[in-house]
Amino acid sequence: MRLKLVLAYQGTDFSGWQLQAETHGRPVRTVQGCLEAALAKLCGRPTRVHASGRTDAGVHALGQVAHADVPDHRDIPWRKALNALLPSDIAVLSAVPAPDSFHARYSARAKTYSYTLWNEHRFLLPQRRAFVWNAALHGTPDPDLMLRAAEALEGEHDFAAFQNTGTDIRNTVRTVYEISSGPGQTPHETVWTFRADGFLKQMVRNLMGCMAAAGRGKVSVLNIRSIMKEGDRSGAPATAPASGLCLEHVEYEDADRDKRPVFHQPARGET
Amino acid sequence: MRLKLVLAYQGTDFSGWQLQAETHGRPVRTVQGCLEAALAKLCGRPTRVHASGRTDAGVHALGQVAHADVPDHRDIPWRKALNALLPSDIAVLSAVPAPDSFHARYSARAKTYSYTLWNEHRFLLPQRRAFVWNAALHGTPDPDLMLRAAEALEGEHDFAAFQNTGTDIRNTVRTVYEISSGPGQTPHETVWTFRADGFLKQMVRNLMGCMAAAGRGKVSVLNIRSIMKEGDRSGAPATAPASGLCLEHVEYEDADRDKRPVFHQPARGET
Repeated sequence: MRLKLVLAYQGTDFSGWQLQAETHGRPVRTVQGCLEAALAKLCGRPTRVHASGRTDAGVHALGQVAHADVPDHRDIPWRKALNALLPSDIAVLSAVPAPDSFHARYSARAKTYSYTLWNEHRFLLPQRRAFVWNAALHGTPDPDLMLRAAEALEGEHDFAAFQNTGTDIRNTVRTVYEISSGPGQTPHETVWTFRADGFLKQMVRNLMGCMAAAGRGKVSVLNIRSIMKEGDRSGAPATAPASGLCLEHVEYEDADRDKRPVFHQPARGET
Repeated sequence: MRLKLVLAYQGTDFSGWQLQAETHGRPVRTVQGCLEAALAKLCGRPTRVHASGRTDAGVHALGQVAHADVPDHRDIPWRKALNALLPSDIAVLSAVPAPDSFHARYSARAKTYSYTLWNEHRFLLPQRRAFVWNAALHGTPDPDLMLRAAEALEGEHDFAAFQNTGTDIRNTVRTVYEISSGPGQTPHETVWTFRADGFLKQMVRNLMGCMAAAGRGKVSVLNIRSIMKEGDRSGAPATAPASGLCLEHVEYEDADRDKRPVFHQPARGET
């Protein structure tokens, strides 16, 4: 039976999603590693987990989606059983049977990431340091300039200049449906939301780094157009740090396109 | 010169506020210990820090107030210099000169704590586990029953039954000005706010434990009145965990009574 899992995790203490070989004889703590260990216990056999995509070390998730093939005959309350075995920085939000044709990565039609900026240059609130980028440290980015940069990045483009090395992806054309901003969990935060048909390696962090540079007047919309045209990562602004990034939602062809993410954060004023 | 400090910290990795002797030959990590170490470097001499009150291990602060006497002649940008020396889980929000008569503890006129409840019984979101109490785990407390308990606890009472042992306080009468609830940072949270002229040891956690028990129908308003009258801690419901608690704001006689806390969290709909 194929199981579709929706997962939340705090990325701070993980070396990312992907299973890794031991380093200096020590196991590397990854989300995939923890999930596969828990599933192996419940299934009585090694069990591979496939995610919608890898997340880097320090990147969080509120709606990561993964699938795994589990024995048909086991009558297990999967969500509850997995949560009982998993460490407290991973939570299985749902675990439901899916058709064999469902693939967490290949069936995905769109993804939404959020990136949270800390706007108060004087200090970063300790309680929020694992979840934001203190982008104001080197000059507060102007929101209007950032929005203009965001508008230049929206749409169908070749995003080769916004992809970090270490991937075998050939087609670097993606469609960014929307880049928008809203209030954050404290008055000193802005949340930028990125929705696209797919993202390249570290693409959201590279888009965010570019937008922050634009907000500080270091990069113009014309610069952004030429960066995209040239497709050269070395010509683009620096990658934003992992801490601000969160995988919010993965959309599939089935009806859940219109569903809200489990942890939808209502905008202020929304009822 | 007397310095008044306003501090934020994430309590998770501290053994509370108060300086402690080494345990098994190892230093114990406390907020006071970190602050005094940083001040000693800047002042060139051991420097005592006095807080408005101790916070327990795991308890957070957004507006803890402390004072310290520093050398007059040092021309130091205290806030910036302290933040450069302190670990990232403590932030000095302000550091301003205060009259010699100012005492962080004895001059305090009122304190406000928040306590955050997680309401979704199925799972605790990993990103919020350090900041909430998963009170719904053993039955979701009914908000109306909790409010009725809160109303019974408001006002001037002898709160001896809500004080944990290990204190030499004799007068256990306090005035609770307000206990109110509002939305939290995610849709699955409720924030209870407690404002009083002062709180006894672990009093907010004991009030919260009592209110949660009331919300589950385990304790009635009549029970609460008799618990207060008898003044016996062993007859009162269990203490709520530290993680949900945050010292929001300390008020003094001077003009800052009407000021909002530095990290005031606007209610949804507020502009």
